[in-house]
Amino acid sequence: MPAINQTRLLDDLRALRSFGATGTGVVRPTFSDEDMAAREWLKQRMIDAGLDATIDGAGNVFGRSPNAAPALVIGSHSDTQPTGGWLDGALGVIYGIEVARALLEDPTTAHLAVDAVAWSDEEGTYTSCLGSKAFCSVLGDIDLTATNADGESVAAALERVGLTNRPHVRLDPDRHVGYLEAHIEQGPHLEAKGLRIGTVTSIVGIGGLVIGFSGEQNHAGTTPMPARRDAGVALFEFAVQARSRIAKVAGDSTVWTFGDATLHPGAESIIPGRAELVLQFRDPDAHVLDAIDAVVRELAAEMTEAGPVDVAVIETRERIAPTVMDAGLRHHIAEAAEDHVPSLWQEMPSAAGHDPMVIAHHLPCAMLFIPSIGGISHDFAEDTSDEDIILGCQVLADAAASILLEQ
Amino acid sequence: MPAINQTRLLDDLRALRSFGATGTGVVRPTFSDEDMAAREWLKQRMIDAGLDATIDGAGNVFGRSPNAAPALVIGSHSDTQPTGGWLDGALGVIYGIEVARALLEDPTTAHLAVDAVAWSDEEGTYTSCLGSKAFCSVLGDIDLTATNADGESVAAALERVGLTNRPHVRLDPDRHVGYLEAHIEQGPHLEAKGLRIGTVTSIVGIGGLVIGFSGEQNHAGTTPMPARRDAGVALFEFAVQARSRIAKVAGDSTVWTFGDATLHPGAESIIPGRAELVLQFRDPDAHVLDAIDAVVRELAAEMTEAGPVDVAVIETRERIAPTVMDAGLRHHIAEAAEDHVPSLWQEMPSAAGHDPMVIAHHLPCAMLFIPSIGGISHDFAEDTSDEDIILGCQVLADAAASILLEQ
Repeated sequence: MPAINQTRLLDDLRALRSFGATGTGVVRPTFSDEDMAAREWLKQRMIDAGLDATIDGAGNVFGRSPNAAPALVIGSHSDTQPTGGWLDGALGVIYGIEVARALLEDPTTAHLAVDAVAWSDEEGTYTSCLGSKAFCSVLGDIDLTATNADGESVAAALERVGLTNRPHVRLDPDRHVGYLEAHIEQGPHLEAKGLRIGTVTSIVGIGGLVIGFSGEQNHAGTTPMPARRDAGVALFEFAVQARSRIAKVAGDSTVWTFGDATLHPGAESIIPGRAELVLQFRDPDAHVLDAIDAVVRELAAEMTEAGPVDVAVIETRERIAPTVMDAGLRHHIAEAAEDHVPSLWQEMPSAAGHDPMVIAHHLPCAMLFIPSIGGISHDFAEDTSDEDIILGCQVLADAAASILLEQ
Repeated sequence: MPAINQTRLLDDLRALRSFGATGTGVVRPTFSDEDMAAREWLKQRMIDAGLDATIDGAGNVFGRSPNAAPALVIGSHSDTQPTGGWLDGALGVIYGIEVARALLEDPTTAHLAVDAVAWSDEEGTYTSCLGSKAFCSVLGDIDLTATNADGESVAAALERVGLTNRPHVRLDPDRHVGYLEAHIEQGPHLEAKGLRIGTVTSIVGIGGLVIGFSGEQNHAGTTPMPARRDAGVALFEFAVQARSRIAKVAGDSTVWTFGDATLHPGAESIIPGRAELVLQFRDPDAHVLDAIDAVVRELAAEMTEAGPVDVAVIETRERIAPTVMDAGLRHHIAEAAEDHVPSLWQEMPSAAGHDPMVIAHHLPCAMLFIPSIGGISHDFAEDTSDEDIILGCQVLADAAASILLEQ
């Protein structure tokens, strides 16, 4: 099996970090100067690795192997959160390049084809998974008109960075047999259990509801307590009761969050007449998402019936279905992990979203996780030990070779 | 006893309504063009009533009786809430003028002195009770530097409306023996009991606390439920528990309100790391206010002890002490009410704030309430029947004559 070059891997990862480095973190939002400079550098590193590299019309850096089909696509995204960590996305991108070149360098695997990729805008500075959507030919008008916080549209950004007339690199069904992505876990599970590798079973689905409370705005001094229809009080009661009801239908890996609550008009001398509560819930099982949706609506109906405040779901966010990873590809990752660190790996869902949510509808996908120190991500403090970074890349390289040799 | 002129009373009240009339409501914030035009008109109505009227350096319209001491001051404020009702303040101002002229017109009371007043900015467009504070010589720098929503200071507003160099009309201990104010109840109690008049025992005291919740901001997908320190969840729990604890120490007329709640950063994919909850509570008894303050702090300490979120009172609003009305003056109002509508009046606290909160520290005060239809106030729908308006003014006139004749 091909051995990765540990020094080259870590050097490249640190070099990529330097584009937008801010303290221990990285600020490299999509289509910023730092992002485009990083993409030019990544393209050159792919060329140096022996790949035929290009930056396409969606900003993706794609390094096509000189070898013929079947080919695996391996990579991740190179853009960051507004104030992001240095490994989120970057790790998987450099892994893709390292695996491609490690296979090309080894006589036993030099004939295998790995196409490396750095997707654009997975984080949604403009629109989530812009690059992988373009690759899968599912980019819609809604994506191209999406804007960043400054109001710049994707189309305007592409023009600004000079990519407007470039073609898109597309998924090629005659060539591509699968997509692999490695990522930091972004959660505490692996570290807490002393494990080194996670093989992702599925990416959780996400549901979202906004619950509205409609009472009566009134004077906080002159309105007696029994006469009140206080939307805020109803919101607090609802949130507390909803938590225990959701817990009853939740699974082990279910998470749910009231990320925002707003009382109107929000003045200390006025009884709130309206209120809104934002709920998000995630689970790898669509049935659990359905059950949570149902108990929330039930509780709203019960509270409205009981009065004195009307409670209703006033907005249902577009459901993101759970994305199941390909069992065959996963098996190769699991075997490679077991070879290197017997029993120190596990199957697990991904609680965060990733490009395979888009790609898995068009191409078999698998993901590999390595531990996040303290479970921290989307934060300058995000980090992983060098040992874990090296191990993860070697496991991915072994799995890639094994997959391609089996084709 | 002097008879008020019912037609003149209602005509003047409707004329005052026309300044800033907006639908069925009135928009006449302090020092707006409409407010100043109303003050000029009020000054002229006081002159027409035989009073020596002026607009003073704080915006108060003060009509001094030509008669010698002892004098009663009678009035209210003529400014409105940003979108106010037509009677809040205006009623008491026109009552003051009507009582002054009714007494001057009646041979048995023509020698008695009633000084009529329309205070400025009771509603706190700039700073609450601006005019009555100036009258009592307790206007502080904090009041003069207070700004309206547009950022204009009191000092700048006074210059804009041309009042900067005018003297303040001051309370004169050698002349003034008491202050009477009539007001709509702004609550539902009188109407609900079929009563016509309320004599105010005290104006409730007001306490305010901001409770802060300090947890840990984190990713709403990758952070398992047991590992969370969710400031929003702690806020919801606190609010629900605080309500039942406050109820245990509250009296019959206690009211408390969570007027605002804020989660930070308030994004659907982020576990709130911080949250704030605003509590206001009112009661005529200072001990009840103390007890509420204490149970809230106790609960915060208990929740912090229990974890995982730190809960603390992070701001204590300046306490407004309950203001007790003068027993002697109240007795005259009660006797006049009993004369006109036997058994159809009651003693009651005022749950809303009024200028006597300032004045009572310097001069004996009493207040008379008339019913509010539906208990509605601070709203365009605010209203009271003509019959109740007329009755209230006659009771006030009788009480004023009785008080002054007794001196």
